[in-house]
Parts: sequence; structure tokens; C-alpha cells
Amino acid sequence: MASNSFGNLFTITTWGESHGPAMGVVIDGCPAGIDLSQQEIQTELDQRRPGSSPYVSPRNEPDQAEILSGIFEGKTTGTPISILIRNKDAVSSDYNELKDILRPGHANYTYLKKYGIFDYRGGGRASARETACRVAAGAVAKKLLAGKNIQITAKLENLDEKALETLQKEGDSIGGVVACTAEGLPAGLGDPIYEKLEARLAYAMLSIPAARGFEIGAGFQAARMKGSEHNDCFFKEEDQIKTKTNHSGGVLGGISTGMPLYFRVPFKPTSSIRISQDTVTTDGELTHLQPKKGRHDPCVAIRAVPVVEAMTALVLTDAYLMNSLSLSSCSLESSSQQLK
Amino acid sequence: MASNSFGNLFTITTWGESHGPAMGVVIDGCPAGIDLSQQEIQTELDQRRPGSSPYVSPRNEPDQAEILSGIFEGKTTGTPISILIRNKDAVSSDYNELKDILRPGHANYTYLKKYGIFDYRGGGRASARETACRVAAGAVAKKLLAGKNIQITAKLENLDEKALETLQKEGDSIGGVVACTAEGLPAGLGDPIYEKLEARLAYAMLSIPAARGFEIGAGFQAARMKGSEHNDCFFKEEDQIKTKTNHSGGVLGGISTGMPLYFRVPFKPTSSIRISQDTVTTDGELTHLQPKKGRHDPCVAIRAVPVVEAMTALVLTDAYLMNSLSLSSCSLESSSQQLK
Amino acid sequence: MASNSFGNLFTITTWGESHGPAMGVVIDGCPAGIDLSQQEIQTELDQRRPGSSPYVSPRNEPDQAEILSGIFEGKTTGTPISILIRNKDAVSSDYNELKDILRPGHANYTYLKKYGIFDYRGGGRASARETACRVAAGAVAKKLLAGKNIQITAKLENLDEKALETLQKEGDSIGGVVACTAEGLPAGLGDPIYEKLEARLAYAMLSIPAARGFEIGAGFQAARMKGSEHNDCFFKEEDQIKTKTNHSGGVLGGISTGMPLYFRVPFKPTSSIRISQDTVTTDGELTHLQPKKGRHDPCVAIRAVPVVEAMTALVLTDAYLMNSLSLSSCSLESSSQQLK
Amino acid sequence: MASNSFGNLFTITTWGESHGPAMGVVIDGCPAGIDLSQQEIQTELDQRRPGSSPYVSPRNEPDQAEILSGIFEGKTTGTPISILIRNKDAVSSDYNELKDILRPGHANYTYLKKYGIFDYRGGGRASARETACRVAAGAVAKKLLAGKNIQITAKLENLDEKALETLQKEGDSIGGVVACTAEGLPAGLGDPIYEKLEARLAYAMLSIPAARGFEIGAGFQAARMKGSEHNDCFFKEEDQIKTKTNHSGGVLGGISTGMPLYFRVPFKPTSSIRISQDTVTTDGELTHLQPKKGRHDPCVAIRAVPVVEAMTALVLTDAYLMNSLSLSSCSLESSSQQLK
Repeated sequence: MASNSFGNLFTITTWGESHGPAMGVVIDGCPAGIDLSQQEIQTELDQRRPGSSPYVSPRNEPDQAEILSGIFEGKTTGTPISILIRNKDAVSSDYNELKDILRPGHANYTYLKKYGIFDYRGGGRASARETACRVAAGAVAKKLLAGKNIQITAKLENLDEKALETLQKEGDSIGGVVACTAEGLPAGLGDPIYEKLEARLAYAMLSIPAARGFEIGAGFQAARMKGSEHNDCFFKEEDQIKTKTNHSGGVLGGISTGMPLYFRVPFKPTSSIRISQDTVTTDGELTHLQPKKGRHDPCVAIRAVPVVEAMTALVLTDAYLMNSLSLSSCSLESSSQQLK
Repeated sequence: MASNSFGNLFTITTWGESHGPAMGVVIDGCPAGIDLSQQEIQTELDQRRPGSSPYVSPRNEPDQAEILSGIFEGKTTGTPISILIRNKDAVSSDYNELKDILRPGHANYTYLKKYGIFDYRGGGRASARETACRVAAGAVAKKLLAGKNIQITAKLENLDEKALETLQKEGDSIGGVVACTAEGLPAGLGDPIYEKLEARLAYAMLSIPAARGFEIGAGFQAARMKGSEHNDCFFKEEDQIKTKTNHSGGVLGGISTGMPLYFRVPFKPTSSIRISQDTVTTDGELTHLQPKKGRHDPCVAIRAVPVVEAMTALVLTDAYLMNSLSLSSCSLESSSQQLK
Repeated sequence: MASNSFGNLFTITTWGESHGPAMGVVIDGCPAGIDLSQQEIQTELDQRRPGSSPYVSPRNEPDQAEILSGIFEGKTTGTPISILIRNKDAVSSDYNELKDILRPGHANYTYLKKYGIFDYRGGGRASARETACRVAAGAVAKKLLAGKNIQITAKLENLDEKALETLQKEGDSIGGVVACTAEGLPAGLGDPIYEKLEARLAYAMLSIPAARGFEIGAGFQAARMKGSEHNDCFFKEEDQIKTKTNHSGGVLGGISTGMPLYFRVPFKPTSSIRISQDTVTTDGELTHLQPKKGRHDPCVAIRAVPVVEAMTALVLTDAYLMNSLSLSSCSLESSSQQLK
Repeated sequence: MASNSFGNLFTITTWGESHGPAMGVVIDGCPAGIDLSQQEIQTELDQRRPGSSPYVSPRNEPDQAEILSGIFEGKTTGTPISILIRNKDAVSSDYNELKDILRPGHANYTYLKKYGIFDYRGGGRASARETACRVAAGAVAKKLLAGKNIQITAKLENLDEKALETLQKEGDSIGGVVACTAEGLPAGLGDPIYEKLEARLAYAMLSIPAARGFEIGAGFQAARMKGSEHNDCFFKEEDQIKTKTNHSGGVLGGISTGMPLYFRVPFKPTSSIRISQDTVTTDGELTHLQPKKGRHDPCVAIRAVPVVEAMTALVLTDAYLMNSLSLSSCSLESSSQQLK
């Protein structure tokens, strides 16, 4: 319960089911005085849109963001920013025939076990559509970070678009790995022990539907390396301390080194396929699942790219705000002066 | 800041530096009425001890746990359990010569950038010694889970002890992967969206010093699989719904399926080696680091095994307690009756 | 920042300004399987309406609640319940002339100091209109509590309606005290030390606009009593342990005794009056405030009554859910069985 | 559960029973680089000592604070500060005869109902002795605030020491009101809606054992005032905006005005008296409580004075740190520069 919020200081709360009237996000903790328009959020949301790739589902959802609060005369006021996205093209009758079937790879079985009830229309709350709200909130976070010259770039590795075409014909799907880099971070960002920057990032990434892992820097490769290979040696260049290699992926002890942040996230293949699968009903009776209708992507990892960027932006903004505290003996003084 | 606590309902707060007078942990949220003795905690702590492997550092630290509160007449009372571990064998003069040197792979550079000050003696707060407190708290969590027939088992994969011997002679180190399984979990454990069970586990694992990643079930392999391969098909056996394969690693949509939980965590090689490394001083001047003294493990992953188990126990206990809420419309009724 | 949420387990997040397009609340942590209709929320909201008393402001706001998520086939699903209230009758031009004036008793000065920006239209986020969202969320909490036979009743003390009429003619306002009782609570509800039931209630009450205090049981009178007078002596009646008096107001050590919960909350007089007041502009220049337009209540305490009930319901629901945990060694067992 | 922590950014966690081996507090979130000695904490603790008034209990407890972590070379390092206080003079056999009796005004009945177990020795965790940990933590907070020229002063109102002498002879007790003022606060401190400064203070005050209420500024008197009387009119003096009166007690809309913060807290009379009282045993059988031994204060409000100051300091420090964030678009820039 109470598991629909993310972030300690720059906090988002998302709500809504894929086939309900609307979805949305409330951003609490955005500093006041930032220029922000609906269009800036829309631009990020449009990245998630069908048109951006031939291999994302043909559902025609414009995902129109509507800002309902928190902006006055074009600027943030420090009050919660509520963003609403109406669900326009939601034909829930498509899902009626699936309502008693445990769909392999889907969450309806586990939701039923946990809640005793499940909104089976298109995945309900568990639908990847919820990530539209993350992207909308991430747009605000990205704007804040851009003002600090921090740039986040996520990319899907090695997507063979020919193979995708074949899979789409076969009704099958494939996984993928999203790699993400954040450049421009100062050294000293993040917190030690349980709030390590890499721990917050891992937490954020594994919260994305279909994500199956996380590795930072050399990651799983580090397990096979010697200390003499893996250690990143320090040197000084133009008054800045840097490391010759970046096996650490930009963090030491949970805190940024100032080198680029680098991590990778694997995504499983889309669970909804058009190939017949054996499964059981909610009563445990054997059945075959042969989906004909419904709108599916052959590779969810394609749409995950802007979501990885959004979640990274949320983690870094939170860390950035938290860090303005870490130097609080100074910043308190200045804030005191500004208040006079 | 405030980053030394972990857990939402079964909450731990750890404190202490490796070369200060003591370290400790406060456990808040342990249910009342559980039998608990100092010896049970000691037994888990002893797993972390030097004697358990010839390849962990020879520091003679008995890590004696002392329970200072929360137990009355052998049972937990629902009040905070404070556990103290004195640092008996802490020769901080060993570290004096290192105090101005940025040690590759260590956190002194990043702590200095963040805090402007660093307790350089043996890693200070960033020392892996902090994990003793996690193991002590994990012992209590394991006890609670054992009462629910949940067993957690972590193992180091493929440790070639011959190679370790060579590395130790060369003064070098090596990484390793710890695999962990939890069996006996009911289906329906965990929370959706941002508090997914795998997200909490990833967060917990990446908070362990030297951890570099996390993968659940098929993990990074899932990225190369087709949906028709990766989907775990449901079937019924002895009144229980199970899956034929377990590529999901025991979770769907962030909630447990009842199949074994399975995940892997890579650890980087120990940063402290006895091979000369180029680095700079805190002033940025070029220097060579040639450590002679100090106590180091050639493979931190060996000691990480009980820590992985402890952090897993903390995550699962928290989820278990949270789940007693999810069914609250029922449990409220029963608690109301018990209260009469 | 991040100050727009309330509750630990049954958590609400409110958003919206009085003169923006809409306001709303997201409820996270409501148990699944509860029957809930839009009408039940509307009924509570209507209590706050102008029509309920001749002395509340004539603003014609139907406060129509629209549930956008979290309900499926008439039942809660365990996912966030998002409730939207459109602002239909918001003539913000009324407030243009006030935009540079520090209004005595209002928050525009302090918001300006904190944020450097203020949505001056009708109090913006600081408007008492935000409490409509609390009432909507409280309706859900009340429903849960009603199922446990817990009844909350708040009343305005000694409101002299003749005096109110005179004040309204004079353009002045008056304060009031709201007394609140909760009956049917089991003994054992609440938490010790920092989460005492009375501490949570005080916190909730002082968060209501215009609230100026809180006292539980004998309250401020207790300061003048002797221990021999104030101590509530225990006795047994029909298998239940009760106290002869209830000076404690139903709590001992932060935990409910099973006797009625009783507390009082004073509200200051409405700050908006139609009597001329000396003040300064945001630049510090002397001016006179002589409001002509705008819609004001002569006594905010009248409208505070359902808000006090709503906030009480939120605190008690949270405590109730938390308590299902306190008995967790039992409830875990039962939840485990239910999960099988 | 998890109810032994207080504060959002400057967080304390207390632990320990009155008759266990020790008590303590862990402070997480204290900025780095602050000079701090054990003696500074001791000085505050000594205010709570028996010697400070003839009317506090004769228990000879030096309350010696021992700092176990978080300080290096005389300065805070940003890591948790753990403070230990040993319980030297704890004769728990005094309490054996009370173990089955429900003591009027005490928490043993409610703890038993909640936990099914109670450490009956001297109040266990519910003992006012826990407040020593709050005072120790408050000493650190006060030090931080003193550096910002914020002074907190609490006083017991109208304590008639003759009356106290009589009460002590009679074995009875009396309540009292503690009034508290904080001067030097900048305008703009605190947060709106649910984290109002007065809400946080009310929460903190009602968490103190025996506290029965809270009022800010005119408080309960405000309920009888007219708006034209209660509104504090603004004026400008020496480049500062002030108010002619301070009925608001220094806050508007939950945020400080820059005028002195002023609030009052009533405390009930000490529950432990030497006068015979009717009560029941834990089995519900009628009995008489005639305490002979044990150490009691005739007026707990005397010892509450430094606790009120400590809790106020914790709330204000938290708000101060939080406010360094509210101006984050500025402070981020400066922290970024400092990090270079």
C-alpha cells in the first residue's frame, strides 16, 4: 500500500488504470519560480508515442497532458503540479474474454492473490501505460537538471529491426537492454549507506514494468575483474580531479565522482504474444490462451527508453535537492540572507 | 542525509565508523512477543567472522553483539531493539599515512567532495564493517521469516580457491557473484508500481558496499529471449498454482508468485590491493599508493554472502508486515476481536 | 516541500488552487474490496456546502466529486483512488486589486517570503477550499471506520447565531471551538513515543487552516488539577476494563484506552473582513485594505466541523491499519493461510 | 511500529527502557563540519537533573552522555551521531509488586492491550526518562540554531513553590503549563498544508509524555476574538516588515512571519502519587494501589521545560534544513560552484 509515490524531496504520486477515464501524476516538491509550460511536458510524452517507431503498438493515444495546478503566470509556485492524461481510446470489451485467464508473464495472478480483485481491462494499474505519468513528471525533472547542465541519454542497444519484423509476423516478442548515461553531474552527489546513488537508480529502474536487472559501470563484468584492473586511478586535468577509466560508472561509495554516470537495464520480452500458450483459469482449470485482439508491442524495451530517462531524471533531481542540504551550513546562511 | 535507515515498517538505523569506539543498529517495528536471545544474533554475526574462510582479512574482531533494549524476559516487547558492537581491534595509526591520498576505488574522494571532511581511518563510515550491523538486524528478520517457513540461501558462485591463493600472494583481488534464493514465500507478497518486490531487493542489494548490479530470474538473459520462451506457463499441482519454468524469478508485476525468489548480485574486486597504483593527493598532486599495512580481503564477495541474506531478510520481513495490511479488511476484524 | 501528503499507510495527497481549473486528492493505501460510490463522497462534501448554514459564504460551488481511478465494478481495488473537483465559480478578477497588498491574517506575505511568488487569486493553495479534498478523502476513511463501528462526531461549541448576524452586518468575523468525539475505538490503538495518537491528532488538527490549538481530555484544565483528581481510576464492567472518569480523553501513553476519544480545536476568526485595516504593500508602503468584493464566511469554524471529522477519520484509519501490524505475529499467520 | 523516530531531514531515533542497561539516540542528517563536544550535550542534559530543582525526583542519575559516532577530530562528519546514556541507578525490584496492577494515568494497560507484553519496571519505554534522549539530540539542534541566532526559551508558568511543598507532603501532584518562545526566526520558514510549522510543533509537543494540548499565539482565546481584533496588521520598520500585534504567534498559513514564535503546552499532574487509589489488576480484579517506594516528581511539568525546548529545536532545525531546499534553484547553483 501507499506504493504509488516515488522520491524523497521531489516526490511524484501516480494514479489511474489503463482503461479508466484518466491517469495522472501529482508532483510535490518542485521548486518555485521555474518557467514551465504544458508543451514542454507534451514534447517528452510524444517521444513515447506510437509514431516514434513502427514497432510500437498501433494504439492511437495522443496522451495529451493537461496541467491542473501548480503553475501561475507561466511559473511554478512551489505547490503541487497535477498533470492529467485522459484515456481516449480504451476499448475495454477487447479484454472481456481474458478476464478469467491467468495470462503468462502478466500480473493478474499476483494481483488477484494480493488484492482478491483485479481490473483486468488491459492490465489495469499494472499496465505499462502508467509510465506515461512517469514521463510527464520526468519532463519537469529534466528541465530542472538541464538548468544545471546535466544531460541524460538512454539508448536501446543492438535492436535488429529486421528481426523485429519477423517476430511481429510470427506474433512473438523480444527483450532488450537500455543503456543510460548522465553527463554533467558534479562530484559529491548522492548519499551514503542505504541511499547510495546506485541504490536509488536500481530501485527506480526495477520499478519500470518488464525491467529485470540493473548494472552500473562494469557491472556484472566487475565480478570477473582483478582489483588492479577495476580500480579507476585518479589524475588531475584542468583543475579537475578525474579518473583514467570509469569502471565505477561514476559513483564511489554511493556518491558521484563527477565522471559520467553509466548504467544498463535489461527488459524482458513483451508478455502479450499472439502465439498459443498453455495456462490455467483463475479456478485452476487448464486452458489455452490464443489472443487475437488487443494492441501489443513486439519489444517493450523500445518504449522503455524515455521511461528510463524519466526515472533517472527523478532520482538525480531528488539527489540534487538533497545535496543542497548536505552543504546546509553554507546554504542556510545564504537562504537566511535571501529571506531578509 | 537521513540515509542511514532502511525499511518502511521493519526499520533499521545503523551508525558507527570502523575505527570509532563502537557500531550499532536500532531495529524499530519488530512485533512483540517473539523469543529472541543475544546468542541468535551472535550466531549470524559469526558467519561474517575471519575464521569462516582463509581468504577473509585476518583482523581479529569477535564482533560481540550486545542487546541494550527491546527485550524483556526473553521476548521482544515491540519497542526498539538496540544492538551494540564494540570495535575492539582498531589500530587507526595504520591509516595515518593514507590520510591525504585519494585511494582508487574508495569513497574518500567522494565523501570529501560531499562533506568537506572524512574520517579516513579504515574507511570510516564507508567501511564494509558497517555491514556487521545489517547482519545483526538481519538475524532478527530471519527469525521472523523462519517462523513463516521462509528460508533464504545465498551462495558465492564459482569461487576458485586456488586462484584466490595466487591473488593473495600477488597482493591483488577479485570480484564475485552472489546468487540468492528465498523459498517458502506465499503468492501475493510485495507491492505494485514503485514498491515492487524486485525494486526493493535491487535497492537493498545495491546499498551493499562493492555491489555493482542486480538481476532477477533470467535477468540480463531475458533481454535476448523471445516472449514465447520467457513467459512462464501456469499449471496446477496439488491445489497450488505454479509455473512450469521460473524465468520471472518468482515475481510478476512486483508481487510474488509463490515460486522461489531468485536473484544474483555482482561484487567488484576489493579496492584495497598491495600493488602500486598511480593516484593523486587531496590537493591533486601526483603520487603512488603502495599500501604495506592494513587488513584486506582478496575477495569482498566472500563476506558479502551473509550480508546479501540479511538484506533479503529485511526486505521480505518488511513486505510480509506490509502484506498483513493489504488484507486489512480481514485482519482488522480479527485484530479488533483480539483487542476485546 | 513534499508537504501536501498526509498519513503513513492510508495516505492522501492533495493538489489544486482555489481559482485554478480544478482541485483533487489521491488516496493511496485504501484496502481492496470495499464498496464505494461517488455518491458516498458527494454526501460528505455536501455538508461543507453553503446551503448547510446561512453563515457560510454565498459562493455557489457544488463541489462535484468525480472518481477517476481505483474503483472497479463498484469496489476498491487497492490502487490509488483519484478524486477530482472542478472549480466552477472562480472569478479571479475579484482579486486583482489585492495582488500587491499584504492582507492581515492571510498567508500571502509568508508564501511570498518562502517562494518568491504567490497565486494571489482567492488565497491560491492556502485557501480553505483545499479542505474540500480532505473531506472527500475523509469520506472514504469514515466508511472504513463505520465498518468497525467507529463513529466520529464534531460539533461547534456555543455558536450564538444572533451575534453572527450582527457581525455579518458589521463586516466583522468571529472565532469558534470545535469539539470532537470518536466512539467505538478498541483499546490498544495508536503508537508510542513520537506517533502517539494524540500527537497525530494534534498534527492533523493544526494542519487545518485557521486552527490555533488542540487539547485532549481535560487539556489545559489538566494543568491546574491534582494527580488525585486527574487520574482516571480503572474498574471492570461486563468483561470490559473502563475508567470511572475520562480526563485522559481516551488515551494513555499515546494509545487508546477504549473510552471515548475527546478533543477540542480552537479556530481563529475569519481573516477576510469588510472593515478597513492598515497594512503595507509588498514593497512595504503603507496602505489601507478595504475589501468590497469577494466571498467570505463570518465564522470559518462552521465549515471546519466536517474538516475536523475528516482529519480525525484519516488519523484513526491510519492507526487502525498500523495496528493490524502490531499484532502481526498473529495476523501474519492468518494472512499466510488466506494466501494459500 | 517504527514510531521511535522524529524529523524528516534532521532525524532522531531513540531507544531504551528506563530500567534496561542503557538508553540512547541516533541523530541522522546533521550537517558536516560543525564543532561538537560531549560536554555541550552534557550541559543540556544537566538541566534535566534532579539538582536543578528541589521538586524533581531524588533519583541520582548523572545521565552521562557518551558520543559513539559521527564526530571526528571535534567536528561532525555528516554520518549518524550515536549518543549513549547508561542507566546506572535502576533498582527494578521496586516495581515487582506493581507488575499486575493497572496504574491509573499510566500506560501499562494500553501497552498490554497493544503488545500483549509490558516491561513494567518504572514505566519501561513509556517512562519520561526517554526524554533524556530528546534533550541530548536537542542540544545538537540548538547548537545549529544558535549559529543562525535563533534562541528558544521555555518557562513554566506560575509555579507556586509553596503549594508544591504541600503537595509533596500530601503525596499528591499538580499539572503545569510550559510557555515557549523562539526568537530570531526569519520569515518564510515552514511548509504549507500538512507540514505547517504549527502542525509540526503541535505534533512534537503532544509526543512529550504528559502533554495534554498545544496552542499557538492567541490559541484558545482566538476562538472568542473578532477578526478586527485578531488580525495582526503589517507595518514596516527599519527595512523589515513586522506586525503590530502577534496574535498569530509568529506563523501565517503554516509559515513563519519573522515575529517571535510563541506557544503554550499544558501538562497533566504526575500520575504516580502516594495517595491510595482504587484500580484493578490485569485480570480485572478490584484492588487498591498504595505506592510506597519509587521515585516521583510532584510536578512533571518542571522537567518538561528542557524537553519542550529540545523538541522545538528539532522542529525548527528540520524546517531550517527543509527551507534551504525551498530556495533550491539558487542554492543548487551555489552548491554546484562549491563542488567544483
